[in-house]
Parts: sequence; structure tokens; C-alpha cells
Amino acid sequence: MRSPATIWVDGKLAAALPLPDRGLDFGDGVFETVLLWHGKPQFLTYHLARLETGLQKLSFPECRATAAEHLHMAASAFTDTPWAVMRLAVTRGSGPRGYAAPDQAVPRTIISAAPLQQDRKQAPSPIALAYAGITWASQPALAGIKHLNRLEQVLAANEARAAQVDDVVVLDGGGHVCSLSSANLFLVEEGRLVTPAITTTGIAGTRRRLVIEQLAPALGLTVVEETVAVSRLEQAAELFCCNSIRGLQPVARLGDTAWSEFPIALALHQQYCDTMTC
Amino acid sequence: MRSPATIWVDGKLAAALPLPDRGLDFGDGVFETVLLWHGKPQFLTYHLARLETGLQKLSFPECRATAAEHLHMAASAFTDTPWAVMRLAVTRGSGPRGYAAPDQAVPRTIISAAPLQQDRKQAPSPIALAYAGITWASQPALAGIKHLNRLEQVLAANEARAAQVDDVVVLDGGGHVCSLSSANLFLVEEGRLVTPAITTTGIAGTRRRLVIEQLAPALGLTVVEETVAVSRLEQAAELFCCNSIRGLQPVARLGDTAWSEFPIALALHQQYCDTMTC
Repeated sequence: MRSPATIWVDGKLAAALPLPDRGLDFGDGVFETVLLWHGKPQFLTYHLARLETGLQKLSFPECRATAAEHLHMAASAFTDTPWAVMRLAVTRGSGPRGYAAPDQAVPRTIISAAPLQQDRKQAPSPIALAYAGITWASQPALAGIKHLNRLEQVLAANEARAAQVDDVVVLDGGGHVCSLSSANLFLVEEGRLVTPAITTTGIAGTRRRLVIEQLAPALGLTVVEETVAVSRLEQAAELFCCNSIRGLQPVARLGDTAWSEFPIALALHQQYCDTMTC
Repeated sequence: MRSPATIWVDGKLAAALPLPDRGLDFGDGVFETVLLWHGKPQFLTYHLARLETGLQKLSFPECRATAAEHLHMAASAFTDTPWAVMRLAVTRGSGPRGYAAPDQAVPRTIISAAPLQQDRKQAPSPIALAYAGITWASQPALAGIKHLNRLEQVLAANEARAAQVDDVVVLDGGGHVCSLSSANLFLVEEGRLVTPAITTTGIAGTRRRLVIEQLAPALGLTVVEETVAVSRLEQAAELFCCNSIRGLQPVARLGDTAWSEFPIALALHQQYCDTMTC
């Protein structure tokens, strides 16, 4: 983080994680990256819903209420900060050697948070994309949730940096469009929105859900979740991406194609700003 | 671990991991599980070779020498312990928020070790297996290396426990045999050994390599690495699995099939014991 992050483990200020921890050993856990405005978590309902889905898929014991309590406590340290980013991770805590989850797991929360310099409501800068070499693996048992096994994203983000672009478009093994390394992707086609269905891979982003459930309907736009052939991307009227920190960003360039006008993406961004609780 | 583990971070005795750490955040790292006999790491050359392959695939800066130094230092604490297990993890250390690896990453070593009660040379107990529901995802960029993204193994191990078997046979998405949740698998067919090729998924186990390069040749056995249809498993004359701690173990039961004699597996186990440096 640009400014030094403040860190809490199990609700207490900390500089280190007690060991052993299955989050470190196996990536056995989930996380959320939450935008704060004066300490108020944005779209928290969506974050907590996805967290709960992840905890259930991984068969964690009930711990959502404790995680939410720790999140609110940590967020309250940022009431004097206009914008901040908070990362909440929930791991399965310690356990004996071996992959099998302990019978009596005691999940652990790890929260880090830091101020963000940029006003998250300002007009978004259009971004440049390239196509990734890596593809997302198909794993229906983990699709959609934001778990801690993120080496594929690390490799994709490293590709983006090497290609000197803002992010990369990642396909699945069958050559269909999935997402960027750290954002969901939408196409604007004939006045409607299209986004890749999340069934075998990918993360069900909170802002993706927001676009589908609130922002697009508010503007009278239809949204379709479906399999998206890569050939459709550069044919689209607009492309835009979204995640919790960057919000909605139009795409200015991908491959040989450039876009200079983004009326739908900018209208959705405005709707996004109006929907934030600040 | 059954006995409390001793833990070292960056070569110093520790009880906690400094945060942030990309090993926790993303599983951005690799690990090895090493068997010690009176503090002497067994088949260390193979472990360090796989570690190096993993570090290179993940574009870590050079750190193998430091990791090996920390491993030897920690192992020396176990010279009076007949058998012990040591887990060496190397993470990409701390970094700013986001998936992309920092330009100047400083990798971190985390070592935990504990005594093992059982003599690792005693005759192995035959194990019971079931078929897993989960399949291993195909990801050629990560196949073979022992990285820290191990949620699939956690889910498979949880299945084994629920099925009250010792481990489960996991297939790939195409229905071919890969491995157990925590061991490589061999079939004995007409006097030769067959093991699934590791190209798109799975971990290239040190004991798998040992069987292929040393144990089978010493007994005049041919080994074939190839795609293995699941239907071949219960037709095999013998099945056995191997990993660094359990050594070589014959399979007594899988699905509707039981085996009661394991001449090849037991001969390989004897060869394995003779090959250990103790």
C-alpha cells in the first residue's frame, strides 16, 4: 500500500501473524478488498455475502459475524480519512500438519487498511489492455469466491507490467473471455451489457454484481451473463472493467483496437458515484 | 504436527510471520516437506531442485542458497531426534497492495519442524482409497511445482476424511488419473510401473522422482509416465503411492477392488529404505 498499512489480527492491532496458519500454509481462506469513505465500508452487504459464500464452500465454521465485527472496528479508525482501502482476510487458523482441515478449526481474521490518495468519485481514466498468455484454470469447486489461492492473478499481473499496460484480458482454457487480472469485464453490444458468466472460474466481483443488479437497471440497460468468444471484444461498442477500488473504468485500447468515446461506461460510473453512501 | 513444531522465520526462531506477506495474501510462494533422520535431510538434492524450479517459474529473485542455509541451520536442532518432519516455505515476502510482484522482492523463509514418532523404515501399512469428487484443475503454468495454492488439496483431503479412507484418487477434468490428495500414485501393470504424466496439473513428488530414477532401475523395473485412464486402476496388479513423509505405501482397497499382496511395492519400499542416508 502507498501509505503504510495498519494491521489487525483477530481484532487487535498487530504486526505479525501467529504461526502456524493455514492461510499461509495452503491459502486456506478468503478475503475481501473493501473501499472506505470516512470509515464507512462501501457496498458491505455484497462483500459480506461473497465472504459467506466462500466460507461455506470451504466448510469453515461460522465466523462471518466475528469477521464483520472486526471489520467495523478497524474501519472506525478511518473516519477522518476521506478514502481508504481495507483488506479483510479470514483464514482457517492454525492446525496440525497436513491438508485436511482440523475438526475444531478456529478461523482467524487479518485486516490491513491504508488511506487512498485519489478521490474515488473523479472521472475514471481510460485504461490500456493486452491479452494475457496465462489462462484461468477451470475449477467449479472454487469458482466465484475470493479465496487466497491467487498465483494465477500474480502471474497475470506480472504479464501486464511486462507488457506496459494497465491490465490483461485473461481467457479460460477453452479460449473464452473471463476477466482482467484484478477486475471483471463488461462489453457494450448494441446498447446492452454482456459479461462472462462465472461458473467454472473467475471471481464474482462486488461491482460486477452492482452493475448487474443496480447500475444497469437504473439506466434501463439489459445485462446478459454468458459465454463470450474472444472475437467479440474488439467488436464491442465499449468495454469497461470494474473492481472495488478502481470502480468502473472504460477501456481505451486492446490489441489493435482503440476506443475514444465511452458514453455507457461514463453514465454507469456516474450512477456508481450516486449509489455510494457518501 | 503431533509434537509442537519449532518455527523459524528468515533463519531466526519465531512464533509469528511479519505482515504483510504475499505468501499469506496470495499463496505467492513454494514449499518443501522434508524428512529428517537425526537432523539429516533425506533426498535434499531432489527437494532443492524442485524448490528452484518453483522459484524460477514464479520469477523469484535468487534465494535458493539462503533457503538451503536456513534449512540446514534449522535441521541441526534435530540431530538428537531419530525422525522429524520439516516444512520449508519460501514466500515473495512483503509488497505493496495488488497482485503484481514488487520489483525488488525480498523473499522470506518460514520453517517449521517437529519430531515424528513412527520409524519411517518400518513396513508400510497398506492404505484404503476412494475416488474424489473434486478434480484437479489444468494449469500448465503451475504444474509440477509445490506452490502454496493448495485449496484443491484441502478439499480433497476433507473428502478423504468424510469417506473414512486414508486418501482419495483425484482425476483431472478429462477424467484421467492424477494423484492422491497428498501423494503420487503408481500402478504395477505386467511387471512394469506406470505413473500419470505431470504436464498440466499435479506435483512432481520427490519420491516419485526417486522411484523413477533410482528405485525402479535398481530392481530392473521399467517406468512409464503417461496419461492413465481411470479404468486401469482397479485392473492393476498393484497400486502404491509415495510422498516424502509416508514413503512408499501399497494400496489395499479402492472402490470395489481389494489387493492383499504387494510384492513390487514392498520390494521398492525395501530399496527405498536402503537408499536413505541413515
